[in-house]
Amino acid sequence: MIIYKDDDFYIEVEPHEVPWVKIFTCKEYKELGDMPKELRQRLWELYDRVEEQMRDYFQPDKINMASFGNMLPRVHIHVMARFQNDSYFPNPLWGEKTQESSLDLPSFEEFYRVLHKYLNEVFAK
Amino acid sequence: MIIYKDDDFYIEVEPHEVPWVKIFTCKEYKELGDMPKELRQRLWELYDRVEEQMRDYFQPDKINMASFGNMLPRVHIHVMARFQNDSYFPNPLWGEKTQESSLDLPSFEEFYRVLHKYLNEVFAK
Repeated sequence: MIIYKDDDFYIEVEPHEVPWVKIFTCKEYKELGDMPKELRQRLWELYDRVEEQMRDYFQPDKINMASFGNMLPRVHIHVMARFQNDSYFPNPLWGEKTQESSLDLPSFEEFYRVLHKYLNEVFAK
Repeated sequence: MIIYKDDDFYIEVEPHEVPWVKIFTCKEYKELGDMPKELRQRLWELYDRVEEQMRDYFQPDKINMASFGNMLPRVHIHVMARFQNDSYFPNPLWGEKTQESSLDLPSFEEFYRVLHKYLNEVFAK
């Protein structure tokens, strides 16, 4: 599901027990350093907005962020809200499960609506 | 081992089969969004330099980058050079091993010297 799109980026939901979105560039780049500098700056501004909204809405214990792209060598930034009682904490979500999750989080659907509205107001060109 | 330091950041080596360094802020911040905006911009400029030097020196198949800090909630950016024949490819380095490594890489020590010299020339204040 795509929850935001402008000329440079789109944001896709990664369905998971924790809030997790992926920021893609519309044009494909292998590495961050292959992106034009202005686009890289805009990417980090977008990331900042997403992190801010995720923290405001979910009050997570920690934000995790990652850019891998080993299978599909195309820049995309994972943004994940982490909680001490999620199944993988304190491991990264690519690591081993540590416990049974006992999460009780506010509506993800509502968060996607909030984020969509906010980004369209403050970020879209 | 610390291979770079200025007033805002330091870079530490993570000993591993692949080239892996961690960029720390000298002052501690829990999340990227807690950093002053100018410092965040400077962090990404430093990241860009590190990525560029890692690509130039090791010619990796992919750069991986991540910010977790779940155990120690303090901003630090992992920068890793990945190769199709490293032990975890295409998984993240926090995932499962996929194969026996058959890496034959140029000297890590020399890379640390190159990176140290370069950052002191182009980035240090």
